[in-house]
Amino acid sequence: MTRRAEPFPLRVYYEDTDFSGAVYHARYLHFFERGRTEALRALGIDQSRLFAAAGGPQLFVVRRMTIEYHRPARMDDLLLVETTVAAITGARIAMRQRLLRDGNTIAEAELELGFLVRGRPARVPAEIAAALALITKG
Amino acid sequence: MTRRAEPFPLRVYYEDTDFSGAVYHARYLHFFERGRTEALRALGIDQSRLFAAAGGPQLFVVRRMTIEYHRPARMDDLLLVETTVAAITGARIAMRQRLLRDGNTIAEAELELGFLVRGRPARVPAEIAAALALITKG
Amino acid sequence: MTRRAEPFPLRVYYEDTDFSGAVYHARYLHFFERGRTEALRALGIDQSRLFAAAGGPQLFVVRRMTIEYHRPARMDDLLLVETTVAAITGARIAMRQRLLRDGNTIAEAELELGFLVRGRPARVPAEIAAALALITKG
Amino acid sequence: MTRRAEPFPLRVYYEDTDFSGAVYHARYLHFFERGRTEALRALGIDQSRLFAAAGGPQLFVVRRMTIEYHRPARMDDLLLVETTVAAITGARIAMRQRLLRDGNTIAEAELELGFLVRGRPARVPAEIAAALALITKG
Repeated sequence: MTRRAEPFPLRVYYEDTDFSGAVYHARYLHFFERGRTEALRALGIDQSRLFAAAGGPQLFVVRRMTIEYHRPARMDDLLLVETTVAAITGARIAMRQRLLRDGNTIAEAELELGFLVRGRPARVPAEIAAALALITKG
Repeated sequence: MTRRAEPFPLRVYYEDTDFSGAVYHARYLHFFERGRTEALRALGIDQSRLFAAAGGPQLFVVRRMTIEYHRPARMDDLLLVETTVAAITGARIAMRQRLLRDGNTIAEAELELGFLVRGRPARVPAEIAAALALITKG
Repeated sequence: MTRRAEPFPLRVYYEDTDFSGAVYHARYLHFFERGRTEALRALGIDQSRLFAAAGGPQLFVVRRMTIEYHRPARMDDLLLVETTVAAITGARIAMRQRLLRDGNTIAEAELELGFLVRGRPARVPAEIAAALALITKG
Repeated sequence: MTRRAEPFPLRVYYEDTDFSGAVYHARYLHFFERGRTEALRALGIDQSRLFAAAGGPQLFVVRRMTIEYHRPARMDDLLLVETTVAAITGARIAMRQRLLRDGNTIAEAELELGFLVRGRPARVPAEIAAALALITKG
């Protein structure tokens, strides 16, 4: 099955903008990260619980990210974050994300995430891999 | 009439936390600011439109703020921001805000805002003052 | 002896500004926090070492802060942070900080800090209190 | 001539970290941006002056960025940002940046910047191109 995570809506606030009048370029990474957190949450994956896991902290980390900026976002904009898993291989997860405003692409990202257990790269646990497979575009 | 702005819900994300495990103390100001922006929006006051006003930029600025931190907020917390206007006098607006989690106060703020037109202190326009009066606690 | 911590210089970057053209009001808390961190470091107090202490994490937390905004800071500004300890009483430290540009006060803060050991309020350890006494204004 | 901009030193503060204990992944973009701003400043290019240019705002924008995260940076780390121009072609500038700690690479970035005049893509002005050529790796 190919399912996309429900797009996640967010609003642009004062804090997100810079003196050029547009959203500061690093803030898009916050937006994408909120989108990933909500996509994981919708799949039943709670990052604060993973971090507090009995066997030691488990967490996702960004290894590599390419971001393309197509249009500036601005104060008060209402945006949507789309999150798709492209592939899961061992300790690596490939994701694609898009930030949209009124159907137009504001920014796009390709990411490679790693999974860490007690600070070391580890295979993505089976139940997490199975959950992510639900939003994997085949 | 005494009416409070609808409490504004927000989620704590990775970006909001610091290495101590709790939310970074400056982020609470972001949360309060989002609460004010949404309280204004609910009253029909759009800050990006004010800033683009024909007669030159109009904006609210924080003059003075006292913030009390009662309990740490943490990753994944769901919080509510309450915003009340305490008084409006000429170019100054006094506000009170609370940040709540499950009915418990996380942080409280008392603010004095100014209103600027083309960079200069100015009286709060009558229609804005009238709108703010709707969430003024008498 | 009354000694002030060496003022700490910092530069305003894109990230610090918002669409109004000035520095975002929450960023001043970052500037003050950097100033406190550098004042502590100059006194031999290393916060990452405190957090990794053998007996469990030790850290300073902000309990209460009043900040007054006098003038806007802007992109490329070179600012100075002044940090003074006003009093140390048990688990509480009162501090005063000023942010200056060319000798003019941009913002001022009064803070009450707490000290936590393993997440609980604790007396400021004697050697930290002694170090802070060096920048206490009597 | 092939010259590199002087590496720019910066310190990691509380604000830069997240609850995982390391620097939040979006903060590296702030560090790189500070490095670019200081590289430009060293070449006599002042971004706040460009933005206030008589003929309308001139600014650099990030069009595309690939960032690789090699090692986590942590609270109190002292880092260096290296900035090199790879190529300038019309309205596009290709840059490479590295973030180093004690000679080890923390993160690397490849960027494509655009130049905007009054919000529209424009050729990089000759004197800016000439200045950037000084830190272009041929």
